[in-house]
Amino acid sequence: MSEHAETLRHAEIERIRQLLVAERSDQLVERLSDLHASDVADIVEHLDEDERRCLMEVLPAEVASEALSEMEDEESPGELLASLPPDTIAAVVEELADDDAADLIGELEDEDRERVLESVVAPEEIRELLEFPEDSAGGIMTREIVSVPLGFTASQARARYRQFAADAEDLYTIFVVDPEGRLRGLITLRDLMMESPGSAVAEFLQQPLAVADVNMDQEEAVRLLSRYNVPSVPVVDDRGELLGCITFDDALDIVEAEGTEDMLRFASVSEEEGLRAGAVSAVKSRLPWLAVNAATLSAAAFVVWFYEDTIAQLAVLAAAMPVIAGLGGNAGTQALAVTIRRIALAHESPSERWGAVAKELLVGVVNGFLIGALVAVVALALPSTGPAFGAVVMVAMWVNLVVASTLGAFFPIVLERLGIDPAVASSIFVTTFTDLLGFLLLLGLATRFLI
Amino acid sequence: MSEHAETLRHAEIERIRQLLVAERSDQLVERLSDLHASDVADIVEHLDEDERRCLMEVLPAEVASEALSEMEDEESPGELLASLPPDTIAAVVEELADDDAADLIGELEDEDRERVLESVVAPEEIRELLEFPEDSAGGIMTREIVSVPLGFTASQARARYRQFAADAEDLYTIFVVDPEGRLRGLITLRDLMMESPGSAVAEFLQQPLAVADVNMDQEEAVRLLSRYNVPSVPVVDDRGELLGCITFDDALDIVEAEGTEDMLRFASVSEEEGLRAGAVSAVKSRLPWLAVNAATLSAAAFVVWFYEDTIAQLAVLAAAMPVIAGLGGNAGTQALAVTIRRIALAHESPSERWGAVAKELLVGVVNGFLIGALVAVVALALPSTGPAFGAVVMVAMWVNLVVASTLGAFFPIVLERLGIDPAVASSIFVTTFTDLLGFLLLLGLATRFLI
Repeated sequence: MSEHAETLRHAEIERIRQLLVAERSDQLVERLSDLHASDVADIVEHLDEDERRCLMEVLPAEVASEALSEMEDEESPGELLASLPPDTIAAVVEELADDDAADLIGELEDEDRERVLESVVAPEEIRELLEFPEDSAGGIMTREIVSVPLGFTASQARARYRQFAADAEDLYTIFVVDPEGRLRGLITLRDLMMESPGSAVAEFLQQPLAVADVNMDQEEAVRLLSRYNVPSVPVVDDRGELLGCITFDDALDIVEAEGTEDMLRFASVSEEEGLRAGAVSAVKSRLPWLAVNAATLSAAAFVVWFYEDTIAQLAVLAAAMPVIAGLGGNAGTQALAVTIRRIALAHESPSERWGAVAKELLVGVVNGFLIGALVAVVALALPSTGPAFGAVVMVAMWVNLVVASTLGAFFPIVLERLGIDPAVASSIFVTTFTDLLGFLLLLGLATRFLI
Repeated sequence: MSEHAETLRHAEIERIRQLLVAERSDQLVERLSDLHASDVADIVEHLDEDERRCLMEVLPAEVASEALSEMEDEESPGELLASLPPDTIAAVVEELADDDAADLIGELEDEDRERVLESVVAPEEIRELLEFPEDSAGGIMTREIVSVPLGFTASQARARYRQFAADAEDLYTIFVVDPEGRLRGLITLRDLMMESPGSAVAEFLQQPLAVADVNMDQEEAVRLLSRYNVPSVPVVDDRGELLGCITFDDALDIVEAEGTEDMLRFASVSEEEGLRAGAVSAVKSRLPWLAVNAATLSAAAFVVWFYEDTIAQLAVLAAAMPVIAGLGGNAGTQALAVTIRRIALAHESPSERWGAVAKELLVGVVNGFLIGALVAVVALALPSTGPAFGAVVMVAMWVNLVVASTLGAFFPIVLERLGIDPAVASSIFVTTFTDLLGFLLLLGLATRFLI
C-alpha cells in the first residue's frame, strides 16, 4: 500500500471511530454499506474489541455478516460473533453462507459454540457441516447450491436457477441429481443460456470433470479445481449423493493458506500462529520447537565435546566447524524445500518420488565436491594448516553435503508415507543431523589423521 | 496417488507408447480425445522427446494445444512446441488461448521464438502480450473476453455472448465498454439471464469491484481476485481502455506458484529450478547460493579463528558453539518465515510492518531468556564447567536470540522497501549473521571472564 493510501485509510478509520463514539449509527451505516465486505473487514480489524462489538450491533446484519466472513485473521471473527447479543448473532448467522458460518463457529471453544448455536434459527445445517473434519472436502464445502432433477427442461432449470441463485455460492453451475439425490451431471450457466427452452436437461447435461469425496483431504479437493480449471467441484458421499460444492474463491484462500502453512511448518512455527498473531501467541507457538531443537543440538554438542582433546590440540578445527555444518544445513534445506513443495503440488507416483531422492544424491555429489574443493583451497591459505588439513575439510564437506542433500529429499517423503505432514519442522531435524554428521566427520578424521 | 491408480496409469502410458510405435494414430486419437487436457498433459510428460513430438503431430490441434497448456513443467511445453513442423505449430497456436500461447512462446530462446511466431497466423496478438513483463497483470491476462458497447440491450448482449463465449476465457462476465474502448462496467452471466430482453445494459451494468492496471505486479492483481471473490478481474491501461482480464484458474496457478517461489527462495534455491527439474538444473540453481554461503560463513569462521587461543585453553566452548548458533538460526528462521508470508499476503501499511519488528524483538527477549536458561542449566551439569560458564552461555544465547528474532523481521521488510524480493536467500544471511554474532558473544565473553 502506498503512503498516500495509508493516510487515507487511517483517516477513514478515525472517522469511523468518531462516529461510533458519537453514536451516529445512520452515518456509519451509510458510510460502510457502500464499501466491499473486504474493505469493511479491514476497518473492523483496526478497531479495538469494544469498538468492533458496537459497530457489529449497529450495522445491518447483511453488512456485518459479510465483513465477518472476509476478516483475514482466523480466530477473531468467531470471537467477535460470540461476544454479540443472541439476537444479533441469530441475524448475522442467518445472512452468512453456511460454510462461512460453520468456519466461524468451528473456531470457537465448546461453550461459546453451543451458546452461539442456541441463538441460531436453523442450527442443524451448521451442525452437520461442523461434523466434517475442518481440513476435509466436507469441511470446506458449501451446501448452498442450485440443483435440479434429471427430468427438468431447460426452461424449468432456468426458473429454478432464478429462484435460488441469490442464495447459491457457486453462481455458475447447476447440479443435476436423480430422485435419490445422487449427482448425475451438471449444467453450466452458459449451456443453460444457449439451450432452447424445451431441451431436456438429461440431454445436454455434462459429466463433471472432477468430483470430490466428502472425506477427501482439502488440499486434494482444491487441486482438482485447479487441475481442471472449473469454478467449483461437487462434493458427494460414498453413495454418490450430492452434498455441496467447493468454490474457486474458497479454493484460492486454501491454496494461499497451504503455501503459508508449508513455509511456517518448514521453519518450525506452529500453524496455530497466524501471520498477524501477537507476541504471546508467537512465543507459545515457537518456544516448544526451540526446546526440541535445543535437545537435538545437544547431540551435536556431545559429538564436539567427545573430541574436546582434539580441539584443544588443534583449535583451528573449531573455525572449520560452522562452515561444514552451515553448508550442510543449507544444502539440506534446499533439497527439503524443493521436495516439500513437490509433494504438496505435483501429481506424482511413489516411484517418481524415489527418483527425487536419487536426483538429490547426485546433486549432493556434484555440489559437495565443488564446494568441498573451494573450502579446502581457502583452508589451505590459512597459516598453521597443511595439505592434510585441507584434505580432511574437503572430505568432511563432501560427505556431509551428499548426505544432507539426499536426506533433504528422503526425510519428507518418509514422513508423508507415515501420514505426517512432510513440512513439520523438517528443517530442524535435517540441519541438526547435518551439524552432527559434519562434526563427526571433521573431528573424527582430524583425530585420526592430523593429531 | 494410490498404488492402484499408479499401476493403471502406468499401463495406460505403456499402451500409448505401443500405439505410437505401431503408428495407430486413429486409436491414439480416440483414446486421448476423451480424456481431460490435464490427463493428456500428464501422459505427455511421461513420454520421451521423440514420443512427445510424434504424439503432438498425430493429435488433433485442439487436443494437442490443450495438453500443452496444461503441462506442469514450465519449460518443456514451449520447447516441445518449437520442435514441431511449422504447420503443426500454426494449427496448435491457433487453438491456444492467447495468454497461454504467449506464456509458451515467452519461455523460448529468441531464435526459437521468432521461428514459432513466423509459423503463426496472427502473431501480432501474441507479440503484443509478449511485450508486457511476464510477472505483470498484462503478462498474465487473456485478451479473449466478451465485451459489449454501452448502448446494447440485454438481448443484444445475449446474442453477442452466444457468438463469442466459445472463444472467451472468462465465461461468467461480460464487460461493457464505451466507444473509446474504456471499461464502463460489467454484467454477470446471472444478471444477463435474469434481465428482460429489452433492458438497457447501461441500466443494469455493475461497477467492477476491482480493476487491475496493466502494469500492476501479478501478485497484487491476483490478490484483488481473491480479496473480492470474483471470477475475473478486468485489466485496463492508464487511459482506462479495457485490454483483457485475469481469470480465477490462472489466479490459482499463480497463488500456488508464489507459495513455491517464496519457499524456494527462502531456502536459497533459484526460482528457475522447477519442482521436477533434473539434477543438472538443480546443481546450477543451488551451487551459486552455496558458494555465497561459503563466503558468508567464512566470516563466522574468522571470528572463531580469532579466538583460537581461547578455544585451545577451554575446548568445551567448541561444544557450546553449535547450540548457540543453531538456536539463533532457528529463531531467526521462524521470524523470517512469518514476516515473509506476512509481506506476501497481508494487506498492511508500512507502520504495521514496523510493528512486526517490535513484536519479534519481544518474542526474542522472552524465548531467548527461557531457552538461554534451559541451555545454561544443561551446561552446568557438564563436568569441568562452573557457574561462570553457565552465565556466559546464558547471556550469549539470550542476546543472540533477541537479535536473531528481530533481524528475522527487519531484514525482509528492508529488502522489500528496497524493491528486492524479501524471500531471496534471506535465510542464508540471517543464519550466517546469527552464527557470527553467537560465536562473537560466546567466545568474546569467555575470553573476558573465563580464561
